[in-house]
Amino acid sequence: MYSCHWPMKRILTALILILAVFALIFFGQLWMITLAAAIVAELATYEYLKLAAVGAESHGAQLRIPIWWMALGTALAFVVTLPNFPVEAQLPVLSAITLALFAWNGFRAPLIQVLPDTAQGLFGLIWIAYPLTLIPLLWKKEDGPALVVFLMVCVWAGDIAALYIGRAFGKHKLAPRLSPGKTWEGSIASIIGSILAAALVVWIGDLLTIRGNLLLHITEPLWQTLILAGILNIAAQLGDLLESAVKRGAGVKDSGTMLPGHGGILDRIDALLLATPVLWFVLLLKDTFSLGRF
Amino acid sequence: MYSCHWPMKRILTALILILAVFALIFFGQLWMITLAAAIVAELATYEYLKLAAVGAESHGAQLRIPIWWMALGTALAFVVTLPNFPVEAQLPVLSAITLALFAWNGFRAPLIQVLPDTAQGLFGLIWIAYPLTLIPLLWKKEDGPALVVFLMVCVWAGDIAALYIGRAFGKHKLAPRLSPGKTWEGSIASIIGSILAAALVVWIGDLLTIRGNLLLHITEPLWQTLILAGILNIAAQLGDLLESAVKRGAGVKDSGTMLPGHGGILDRIDALLLATPVLWFVLLLKDTFSLGRF
Repeated sequence: MYSCHWPMKRILTALILILAVFALIFFGQLWMITLAAAIVAELATYEYLKLAAVGAESHGAQLRIPIWWMALGTALAFVVTLPNFPVEAQLPVLSAITLALFAWNGFRAPLIQVLPDTAQGLFGLIWIAYPLTLIPLLWKKEDGPALVVFLMVCVWAGDIAALYIGRAFGKHKLAPRLSPGKTWEGSIASIIGSILAAALVVWIGDLLTIRGNLLLHITEPLWQTLILAGILNIAAQLGDLLESAVKRGAGVKDSGTMLPGHGGILDRIDALLLATPVLWFVLLLKDTFSLGRF
Repeated sequence: MYSCHWPMKRILTALILILAVFALIFFGQLWMITLAAAIVAELATYEYLKLAAVGAESHGAQLRIPIWWMALGTALAFVVTLPNFPVEAQLPVLSAITLALFAWNGFRAPLIQVLPDTAQGLFGLIWIAYPLTLIPLLWKKEDGPALVVFLMVCVWAGDIAALYIGRAFGKHKLAPRLSPGKTWEGSIASIIGSILAAALVVWIGDLLTIRGNLLLHITEPLWQTLILAGILNIAAQLGDLLESAVKRGAGVKDSGTMLPGHGGILDRIDALLLATPVLWFVLLLKDTFSLGRF
């Protein structure tokens, strides 16, 4: 019974989320995108904290990262990436907040937990909060909305292709230790799916541009866009696998129960958590070596 | 027998180190300071890796942070803080190297270790490598050599005052759980020691300046320098306590055996690892709010 109902629930949740994301990208303002990304980051770091706590318990220990610290750290991650925040203070703020958690743990946590707890608090910021701060930064670039749509479509199309092609034709296990359901067939379908979806985005963007609508305008040469789609897809799949590794390390199946039919927030954004910094890095490299811009 | 010999060994080692540091600060060039800081950082992160491994073992686990990753990460920390490295790429590089370790651990480590090991690898960079990159950055500021001397003298003078006054008059335990030998009397003597030593540095600097030698020139008002000395001393003492917490968490006494009579490199620089970023942060705040400069 349940297994018959969940796909509907899942598809409905996905549709609502996708529409909300597109509405934000095309009709939102910078502060709305930033706020939405910050809320997602707060929810995801909260789930992360629970995951890390379950992981610590299976070591026979109790995690001592205060929720207020994680909330403050995540909020600060957004503050330090605001356009008017001095860039040279980003690392000092990261260092200061980490040292604050270190001091808190030093006086509160069992000694054996001081190092791992402090380290895991910091890692939550770099793994989850930082990539999400890049979404508003991407959006406010030239052709920013098109860039964010491109990123989302690559990740989603790859995910869908992997699911359906993998289920139909999947035979050879990709990484059974991390995620037993994934196959090489699904993974390769995922890459092809992302590249095709990226081509579709470019094609629609070109059609709109001819009609004078620059909403989906992408100036990058087509071949670069398609290679980028492949790279982002591989990053997204890796992000998915690594989140699975963390969940399995903690011994849980879903990161949370916030989204009906989808598990937790972290399960939904795991692919994005790797694809976004990889995209940001590629753009930085292209800028640095003047390889043209997106 | 041994207890009669170690103070001599300790004092001799300290003297050689202090002379080497002063020689570097006053007669060295930027690349020498950077190279020296980088070597200390590599040795200290290596000790850190061993400490974290012992800590993991006492959890019944095996740490999987490769030495090459730690060496590469530490070297990269210095590269991203070089003057001609684009500041906006610092966080992306930190993110990229962390994700690389995450992926490595995902496929190599036992699942339960993926999260703590990746996190502890990242933490080593922020706790140890990052503060040491700030030493050459401080040195090349205006009045930079005086600034670095001031930092070192504050930390050392506080350490010495705490040791001798604490041993003679110490009664009330400061933080018995973290470091049983430390007393409030020693801690307060340490703050006073740092402030007096800072005053001495300023006095010598003023004498030299009158004679036309700007080697120890400090433009900051005296009261600000003395408050800063107190702040740096507290940060240094906290750094000492937190390193003790990590060592006790791992169940070891010294972080290593590299320095005769002094234990490991990490034991020697633990105070500096907190005092340096705190100094950097204070200077950033003073710059931002135009409170005068050091």
